[in-house]
Amino acid sequence: MNAPLRFGVVGLGYWGPNLVRNLQELEGAEVAAVCDRRDDRLELIGRRYPAARTTRDFDSLLVDPLVDAVVIATPVATHHSLALRALEAGKHVFVEKPLAASSQEGHQLMTTANRSGLVLMPGHTFIYSPPVIRIKELIDSGELGEIYFISTSRVNLGLHQADVSVVWDLGPHDFSILRYWLGERPSFVAATARSCILPDTPDVAFINVECASGTVSHVELSWLAPGKLRRTTIVGSRKMVVYDDTSSEPVRIFDSGALLQDPKTFGEYRLTYRTGDIVSPHIDAREPLALELADFCMAIQTGDTPRSSAQLGLDVIHVIEAAEQSIACGGERVRVLDVIESQSGA
Amino acid sequence: MNAPLRFGVVGLGYWGPNLVRNLQELEGAEVAAVCDRRDDRLELIGRRYPAARTTRDFDSLLVDPLVDAVVIATPVATHHSLALRALEAGKHVFVEKPLAASSQEGHQLMTTANRSGLVLMPGHTFIYSPPVIRIKELIDSGELGEIYFISTSRVNLGLHQADVSVVWDLGPHDFSILRYWLGERPSFVAATARSCILPDTPDVAFINVECASGTVSHVELSWLAPGKLRRTTIVGSRKMVVYDDTSSEPVRIFDSGALLQDPKTFGEYRLTYRTGDIVSPHIDAREPLALELADFCMAIQTGDTPRSSAQLGLDVIHVIEAAEQSIACGGERVRVLDVIESQSGA
Amino acid sequence: MNAPLRFGVVGLGYWGPNLVRNLQELEGAEVAAVCDRRDDRLELIGRRYPAARTTRDFDSLLVDPLVDAVVIATPVATHHSLALRALEAGKHVFVEKPLAASSQEGHQLMTTANRSGLVLMPGHTFIYSPPVIRIKELIDSGELGEIYFISTSRVNLGLHQADVSVVWDLGPHDFSILRYWLGERPSFVAATARSCILPDTPDVAFINVECASGTVSHVELSWLAPGKLRRTTIVGSRKMVVYDDTSSEPVRIFDSGALLQDPKTFGEYRLTYRTGDIVSPHIDAREPLALELADFCMAIQTGDTPRSSAQLGLDVIHVIEAAEQSIACGGERVRVLDVIESQSGA
Amino acid sequence: MNAPLRFGVVGLGYWGPNLVRNLQELEGAEVAAVCDRRDDRLELIGRRYPAARTTRDFDSLLVDPLVDAVVIATPVATHHSLALRALEAGKHVFVEKPLAASSQEGHQLMTTANRSGLVLMPGHTFIYSPPVIRIKELIDSGELGEIYFISTSRVNLGLHQADVSVVWDLGPHDFSILRYWLGERPSFVAATARSCILPDTPDVAFINVECASGTVSHVELSWLAPGKLRRTTIVGSRKMVVYDDTSSEPVRIFDSGALLQDPKTFGEYRLTYRTGDIVSPHIDAREPLALELADFCMAIQTGDTPRSSAQLGLDVIHVIEAAEQSIACGGERVRVLDVIESQSGA
Repeated sequence: MNAPLRFGVVGLGYWGPNLVRNLQELEGAEVAAVCDRRDDRLELIGRRYPAARTTRDFDSLLVDPLVDAVVIATPVATHHSLALRALEAGKHVFVEKPLAASSQEGHQLMTTANRSGLVLMPGHTFIYSPPVIRIKELIDSGELGEIYFISTSRVNLGLHQADVSVVWDLGPHDFSILRYWLGERPSFVAATARSCILPDTPDVAFINVECASGTVSHVELSWLAPGKLRRTTIVGSRKMVVYDDTSSEPVRIFDSGALLQDPKTFGEYRLTYRTGDIVSPHIDAREPLALELADFCMAIQTGDTPRSSAQLGLDVIHVIEAAEQSIACGGERVRVLDVIESQSGA
Repeated sequence: MNAPLRFGVVGLGYWGPNLVRNLQELEGAEVAAVCDRRDDRLELIGRRYPAARTTRDFDSLLVDPLVDAVVIATPVATHHSLALRALEAGKHVFVEKPLAASSQEGHQLMTTANRSGLVLMPGHTFIYSPPVIRIKELIDSGELGEIYFISTSRVNLGLHQADVSVVWDLGPHDFSILRYWLGERPSFVAATARSCILPDTPDVAFINVECASGTVSHVELSWLAPGKLRRTTIVGSRKMVVYDDTSSEPVRIFDSGALLQDPKTFGEYRLTYRTGDIVSPHIDAREPLALELADFCMAIQTGDTPRSSAQLGLDVIHVIEAAEQSIACGGERVRVLDVIESQSGA
Repeated sequence: MNAPLRFGVVGLGYWGPNLVRNLQELEGAEVAAVCDRRDDRLELIGRRYPAARTTRDFDSLLVDPLVDAVVIATPVATHHSLALRALEAGKHVFVEKPLAASSQEGHQLMTTANRSGLVLMPGHTFIYSPPVIRIKELIDSGELGEIYFISTSRVNLGLHQADVSVVWDLGPHDFSILRYWLGERPSFVAATARSCILPDTPDVAFINVECASGTVSHVELSWLAPGKLRRTTIVGSRKMVVYDDTSSEPVRIFDSGALLQDPKTFGEYRLTYRTGDIVSPHIDAREPLALELADFCMAIQTGDTPRSSAQLGLDVIHVIEAAEQSIACGGERVRVLDVIESQSGA
Repeated sequence: MNAPLRFGVVGLGYWGPNLVRNLQELEGAEVAAVCDRRDDRLELIGRRYPAARTTRDFDSLLVDPLVDAVVIATPVATHHSLALRALEAGKHVFVEKPLAASSQEGHQLMTTANRSGLVLMPGHTFIYSPPVIRIKELIDSGELGEIYFISTSRVNLGLHQADVSVVWDLGPHDFSILRYWLGERPSFVAATARSCILPDTPDVAFINVECASGTVSHVELSWLAPGKLRRTTIVGSRKMVVYDDTSSEPVRIFDSGALLQDPKTFGEYRLTYRTGDIVSPHIDAREPLALELADFCMAIQTGDTPRSSAQLGLDVIHVIEAAEQSIACGGERVRVLDVIESQSGA
């Protein structure tokens, strides 16, 4: 049996304690140290996990030979500098989503990690949630057929953020899910948005995403809504799926579709519609965050790429940047940059 | 008391018989004649309404002095020529939606009607449906405040049409409702679509619509969906509304919103969220088609413009054409032409 | 091919015209005559079906050699005398539910029909509805296991009837369904009710029904409710089913249950709970009334007992009478009479 | 300002820690000691609340002058002896629902508390939940009119208990709510049940409850169900309410009803049905347990009777015992004993 992996966690605000708790409960993992600037947060977490060293000094994590990997749950603006310093100190890095505040930043992190053979993993937790995984299996098995289009709504009332748009805040969830499901990078994005409450801070956005394979996706994001809606429809050539994260039946599979038969005579189409059973498969209630951190450990130990890879995190940022650019120029269709271009553009 | 208005109805397919039935039940209206090329349809309707003359000859309606108005329920491609001949014969005209197959055609019909002082009315039935009217009242009374955005989905499985896209088929419903609610013509449209089943016949479309006032609308239309969805969310600065045409509570009013208070100090925003009661007002179950035809009679008798005016019908076509143009050039943002431009372009 | 069966329909109020329409559309059936006391009803139906003779004289149906069977859709109080006269005239009889106004009346009809080898069939339409049939198949195939209990609610606002309770009005639906599904007569009934609006006319009732096999059923009936509810839960030892007649997914099958394993040690139970997939099977949208009348024709032609047999209709009345008796004596548990006893009591 | 009240909590299983946490967060309250037989439970809670003394010895709470009140969260069988000893030691007592394992036990506790002027309070948490309180206000204000009947379902899959029926397990919730809403003790109960899984342990029960005022209630309780259902319908002469504890809109008020107008002519009734707006009032999300414990503190400090009084707890047991007796004799209608009778019977 291997020695346990030891983690240093920086940022003990809203999400950090969840990371600490899940790491602590993970077999083969230990929280060696926790770091924050606020004494009260350090004290609170320190009391809960007496074995973890508490510190206000991030550098102390980097020089600590007992720390194998650094887990970053600080504000987005700090992701790049903290992650870069950790990688340069030879630590594996897990950083909360989004990977960085720009594709340039993200790209630099990725190349740094690759150069040193270190794991760099953004925390796209949704792609570890059992309903999302189940749908991935449905797509990959061919049960849904060709994916014609995906339409998704992620809306609720609040919380507005003063410095980033709803696209940066909620977009990473849907863009990482789409990237995971479809297995390809979007090629074009067109987005319309409005800053209803705060000036220059879009709080509603309608984003169309095109992939080279032909799959079209629509993503509706909003901090202004009469209620919470987390509804995704996936329309395939064989079956259709509705994924509702707020439902007790999060995945519903519809054996429905339209079938084009061979034209009887030239120029005449014969269409039949099929409406069959609807199945809500039982979905296990495992915690996505635990699965995500286990994947991080696996990646460190085996060298395999985690599902939520740095490349996936970078792809998500590329889509966000394309959406923001489209919004800025009034809804124009914008080409999503790929790695090579962003590299040369950096 | 006035003499009853006498109508000639042409086209006795799916929708025509509904028009005949509602006209027959309307006080002050009489069906003088019905016209179709198919003898079996004529026979069926003739048996039901023995007082109505049946004819295969459209011209016979036009020369019949007993016919005050012509009601057209034939395929879209024939709207222009039939309506034009009726107007030129001095008859008022009601034509099923859409008004015509192009804005040029629609514009010619409108100018012809205006020149002769005749009523030309497209059959946008939804703007006579009690839930839609109730929401119009909520908007006009200011109860919802400024309309930030509207998001609407109109999807179901089928029926594909071989010659027109889902935008021409389902779009007139939403575009007429938006036009009625907002009281302004859209200025820009951007649309993404896909022809999943039939080549070159989009069966799913995501359409963003911008108005000069700032209101942004998103319209999702599809013939491919796991189920029927008719869901519209209207987000105002004061209240929000969900309109669901398939629900026993078609209008739900949410006393919810985000409130920006005066910044405490320079550059700092204070937002509060309000979540109050939800009300499902009782909505009368009157038949929209009866209200629509009564409005047509009123317009003929008083000379007032009907709610579903020729101008509204033309505006709807302008939005459809802009959406189709946007789809054709890959989602580009397209300016919606207004009447003057389309005139000069004609 | 057989000559068509010819029907005389008496009672052209709310339900009668549906019977006429379905008979008319049924292959191998013809409506020979329609009968009502009201001239306007006769005229209306006569215009729709010119081939049917119209008459105000019920006896004229009985002496008409062209009439094979009489279909009765008159008020309950008249069922017995009309059906008896028809049977005595040698006609097969279909009578709307309930079969008669009392078990004595019902029993007399049944013995009369049996003596003459005529079909007597009560119109329990629900047991011909596709969702109810589908559940019957699930029960009979053993897929649900032993049926532990059934809980059903049939409530809506109105319509109160001045002369019969909600048990006589709505009860026949549920009691016929239970009788069909379970294949056994209830042995005991206990009911609590209240006459909220009209004196001595219960408009809400809670009825517990026990069968010898052990299955317990609860039936909630009400004319006072905030909305329409048609919800039945069937809990079996293997699977559970929810049947909702108002839903687009009327049958939902839950692969869930509790499993008692062999006690580890004496007196200790080990229970495990199983929660599996949920399936909404596609249910064909055939009209129950058409299937019911086809079954009537089949019974006449073959001599086989129809699904909605006179015995089933009589069993339903026995349950209603037991429930009424329980209500009358304050909720006491009442034994359901079976045929032999009711016979000797007659 | 008063000195804080000091509590000793016994029983640190599933519910006890919730009581400790809420007491700790309550202003004016302190957890002086926690007691359990299991060292690991004591250690866990002791670590969380270092200021609380931990002990395995219940008597040490009773002799501790720093303990004002004892909070009991142990199995039902022990409620009586622990509560009695605490009262006899002069401590106020809060005991988890049900108050005791029989009405005799409950009655003895109540008279003991009354004699010594001590507060005895059962933990009927639901009557402190904001939706239940809101409905109490609606009833008391007369907004619902006369309460005709109440129908409630509390079902889910599991958890079976080996020693008590579903009536003892789930019944206290509904019987306490009904007692609180209606403000009167039930007079008669009739119940049907079945022991589906474990022998002699009913896991489904249909219970009819009658009050002297005329209000009829039906309570469906089950550990066997395809899903969780917490649905209560209250039908009043003026309005109706649906209370669904699992919904984001737990209270819905329907302005609907049937209206009996003066008979036009002798013996003829004229009924009209009214269907108005539906309102989902905003309900505050306060934790019921915190409100409940604050009520306990208030009762200790002021001598006022808490909402969840010993009398209410005893009334609940009387209903449960009547239901069990009805089940035992096959569904017979059973009179609910009141205090005097149960006393003399003791």
